[in-house]
Amino acid sequence: MAALEARLREVGETRYHHRHPFQLMLQNGELDKRQVQAWALNRYYYQAMIPIKDASLIARLDDPELRRIWRARLVDHDGEAPGEGGIARWLKLTDGLGLGRELVVSTRGILPATRFAVEAYTHFVRDRTLLEAVASSLTELFSPMVIGQRVRGMLAHYDFVSAETLAYFEPRLTQAPRDAEMALDYVKRHAQRADQQQAVIDALRFKCSVLWAMLDALQHAYVTPGQVPPGAWNGEPGMGGQPT
Amino acid sequence: MAALEARLREVGETRYHHRHPFQLMLQNGELDKRQVQAWALNRYYYQAMIPIKDASLIARLDDPELRRIWRARLVDHDGEAPGEGGIARWLKLTDGLGLGRELVVSTRGILPATRFAVEAYTHFVRDRTLLEAVASSLTELFSPMVIGQRVRGMLAHYDFVSAETLAYFEPRLTQAPRDAEMALDYVKRHAQRADQQQAVIDALRFKCSVLWAMLDALQHAYVTPGQVPPGAWNGEPGMGGQPT
Repeated sequence: MAALEARLREVGETRYHHRHPFQLMLQNGELDKRQVQAWALNRYYYQAMIPIKDASLIARLDDPELRRIWRARLVDHDGEAPGEGGIARWLKLTDGLGLGRELVVSTRGILPATRFAVEAYTHFVRDRTLLEAVASSLTELFSPMVIGQRVRGMLAHYDFVSAETLAYFEPRLTQAPRDAEMALDYVKRHAQRADQQQAVIDALRFKCSVLWAMLDALQHAYVTPGQVPPGAWNGEPGMGGQPT
Repeated sequence: MAALEARLREVGETRYHHRHPFQLMLQNGELDKRQVQAWALNRYYYQAMIPIKDASLIARLDDPELRRIWRARLVDHDGEAPGEGGIARWLKLTDGLGLGRELVVSTRGILPATRFAVEAYTHFVRDRTLLEAVASSLTELFSPMVIGQRVRGMLAHYDFVSAETLAYFEPRLTQAPRDAEMALDYVKRHAQRADQQQAVIDALRFKCSVLWAMLDALQHAYVTPGQVPPGAWNGEPGMGGQPT
């Protein structure tokens, strides 16, 4: 199983979005405020769908013990009370960036490509084997390395962000490794055959492609060539994203 | 109902991909062979999924008359015999462009964003109301205007395409208007309430965003900045698109 873990880590090394140009620009202070806003606005949809994805996975787990462990992810994102949890902390970021709550929560201004990528992920978790669904969460193995750099880079370079607006990220530094260890343990125990191990690798590749496609779409719309598709957010703090 | 049709045509005018920079480059002869290959390779997945989308729509129609009418779309794409129909004609295009059949039919080299956009469309048709599913096909109202220009432009500008390799498009000039008229008639009869008419408009906007996102992804990967995502086709005629 050490071989499987090594293959998974190699997928992360080559395909995780820590290598994406938009991610590098974000952490190196090379984006303007509108571009950081676009990132936070679009990424909100991903954040908002994570507990829905996790609930559909829990709904497929027969074992109360596994359901209880996986439930921690719901608590992390939805909190114990209004205003708590990862989604609420993401809204502190979009608030801090001057984006209107209604615009953010409605998701009406996000890029269609963001929506398609995130939905591909939620459908994958709902429709594929449980092993693949669990394996698709393994990008968490790699997230601490981008989160640390992202927070340090953003605080150093952007006067429009503060430690408070980046409150989302700090808990993730402990939550993500805990979740990733559990998921890694699960796939090591359940991916015995070669075809199962290949399915696990493919699931992680798929998930990397979801994150990568989200940044490709941001880069295309807001950086190079900066061509916003019809109907998506155009840079107005509370407007844009045509009402449908 | 004339008002609904006028609103639908306005969506097409502003959001259909005849305005997309990649489409303009394609028909104006501004792409190189590799870029045209990338377009044909990725678009194959869309072509291949159309009859699957149509079958899932037929499966939701109670009326034998409507099923029979919609069935013509299956015949158009899948043909009456091996080697016939729209998918087979699309493969003549990819053959003519020098792409290996295995690479094309496997779809392993397509951009993840292409896959996510096309799947968003097939899921939309399967999961939304029948009215929305039918309405999402209304981009066919606008396709004759791009097909004519595309064929003329490609023949005029590219020595690597011929009338024979573009055989896909000619039948579409009569099939698409026939299909579009039927779907337009359906939505005019079934979208009586204002909320239903809005759902029809939104379904057409959604479908335009699918086609637009497919061209955005091609432009980003192969034109500007020309950044191919990990695992996608890299320009080799029969290779590229890493086996998974």
